[in-house]
Amino acid sequence: MVTQQPITLRDVARAAEVHPSTASRALNVETRPLVNDGTVARVLAAAEALGYEPNSLARGLKLNRTFQVGFVLPDLTNPLFPPMVRGLEDSLNGAKYTVVIANTDNDADKERSVLDAMLRRRVDGLVLATARRHDPAIDGLREAGMPLVLVNRTTEDGGVPSVTGDDHAGIGMALRHLVELGHRRIAYVGAPTSVSTGLARYQAFVSWARSEGIEVDADLMVSADWFQEDPGANAFRELLERDVSFTAVVAANDLIALGCYDVATEQGISVPGEVSIVGYNDMPFADKLSPPLTTVHVPVYEIGRRAADLLLETIDQPTSMADAIRLRPELIVRGSTQPPVS
Amino acid sequence: MVTQQPITLRDVARAAEVHPSTASRALNVETRPLVNDGTVARVLAAAEALGYEPNSLARGLKLNRTFQVGFVLPDLTNPLFPPMVRGLEDSLNGAKYTVVIANTDNDADKERSVLDAMLRRRVDGLVLATARRHDPAIDGLREAGMPLVLVNRTTEDGGVPSVTGDDHAGIGMALRHLVELGHRRIAYVGAPTSVSTGLARYQAFVSWARSEGIEVDADLMVSADWFQEDPGANAFRELLERDVSFTAVVAANDLIALGCYDVATEQGISVPGEVSIVGYNDMPFADKLSPPLTTVHVPVYEIGRRAADLLLETIDQPTSMADAIRLRPELIVRGSTQPPVS
Repeated sequence: MVTQQPITLRDVARAAEVHPSTASRALNVETRPLVNDGTVARVLAAAEALGYEPNSLARGLKLNRTFQVGFVLPDLTNPLFPPMVRGLEDSLNGAKYTVVIANTDNDADKERSVLDAMLRRRVDGLVLATARRHDPAIDGLREAGMPLVLVNRTTEDGGVPSVTGDDHAGIGMALRHLVELGHRRIAYVGAPTSVSTGLARYQAFVSWARSEGIEVDADLMVSADWFQEDPGANAFRELLERDVSFTAVVAANDLIALGCYDVATEQGISVPGEVSIVGYNDMPFADKLSPPLTTVHVPVYEIGRRAADLLLETIDQPTSMADAIRLRPELIVRGSTQPPVS
Repeated sequence: MVTQQPITLRDVARAAEVHPSTASRALNVETRPLVNDGTVARVLAAAEALGYEPNSLARGLKLNRTFQVGFVLPDLTNPLFPPMVRGLEDSLNGAKYTVVIANTDNDADKERSVLDAMLRRRVDGLVLATARRHDPAIDGLREAGMPLVLVNRTTEDGGVPSVTGDDHAGIGMALRHLVELGHRRIAYVGAPTSVSTGLARYQAFVSWARSEGIEVDADLMVSADWFQEDPGANAFRELLERDVSFTAVVAANDLIALGCYDVATEQGISVPGEVSIVGYNDMPFADKLSPPLTTVHVPVYEIGRRAADLLLETIDQPTSMADAIRLRPELIVRGSTQPPVS
């Protein structure tokens, strides 16, 4: 048995004796009016004769744009995401695209079914906030030629454009703020290193601690099961049970910091009186917490906008470079940090 | 000049010399693969020659379900909405529908362009959180036969199914809570009565005050320009400038209550020491505010779910009754209310 190569646009163009760009315009309902009817008929006949696959993902992508873009994210009720969605929308609507949102709840089955639904819907591209460092779903989408942009998190396999905050710089800001206040025993309440943000923030904490001359004590490092309040509380409880001394905490995100707040309240530990806490993201209402949370502001609205622009480029020019855009965060000092009481 | 009848699917089918059902399949991107390419080309050419309006609402509704539903809301970054979106999605995804979100920012032009985009996209129905009490846009959509469900807010013209919280009951809970604590001088920081929630909460405040035997003093009533923090702060400042005495405030929503918090902090007024404050909605992180906000919990996730179910019914049976579902809220007592200091 001979393995058949899939029929390409070039094959169709050659058979119809037209330039590939003409064949492409003729096959695409949006651009078909630009081609004369005789040529359209010839191209369609050639496509049919060759069995050019009209149902393949490639067809969805090449022949007719739906002007829809999918945004796949873990959970819209995570306060990180609504401003990012607004950024995406504000940029995409200008280009007459709309955004379809789907939540995966970090569940692999749900993610698969959500991505299937997006493909059936023939979205023109996908923005994914769900990347894992090794992510077969993303590999599959890339192989299928789906225009992709990753936000917030990236994969290690590269080759996919991404827009993220600069985690290394951001954690450095958090740590140096605490060091400048005089803290030396600084704990890290991290998040799973199976996703890029978890790993990058952990690595950044370790490397900035070393370069600031702060002891990196394994007993002061703990990891929440996820970037959420309850897992953050559990991790902070675990840290307290170790009975090691520390005067400050860097949390891998604001919700984890919130979990630390909960345990501090529960155990009568004063923040920032006894322990200073720095969060990450600057989610909405971080300034309204008690105490208002010192945190690292990630420009999530801007991440959404830039991701939209990058996706539109990728849709127009599938061969364009895989840019990895990192936006600079900013330290926001509020009421949850102060010098240690000696 | 002769008034032209709109070109119908039958006209296109006749011109292309195919059966109308074939023309329909050829015009619909979802079913087009079922028709041979030569026929597709003929139908598309006929449609173009006749000027068949491929974007008409009728076509979107009759020829092909898109299995997409639009959710038009003022602003996704208002914390009320993400849980509502999750409720919509959880219910609609089960029926293989997806949700397209669009923000209007309470801007009439933007609303019009967003609704146009939804119609072009041929959504199968719309969920609107943007209703005004008199709303020509909704009238237009109804006349066009678009399946609609209103959430949160309703119109006064009736005839459109809606799912809302029971504002009358909810404001009653807030007011009676304060009365039971011993408050008699209770201010109301309201919201525009041009939308149903603003009017209903205002009316509920007045009627519950009367039935509880509380004086309804016009000097204690003030209205924020919108359901947001800064307008809430401005309204509360205006109230304080009147120099009338009060010991408690009912705010028309949590963000307005948050504006009252801001002004209280700014002017050194203790909450709840000097003034008790009750919010409305129980938005995420209301429990994390300082002090944690006593508020009326509106089941927004459930509103989303029920709206989805109602919309699916309406799509399947366009003649079904216009149900007005009101979900019961619940008082959540936290730290922002206490008995008045006499």
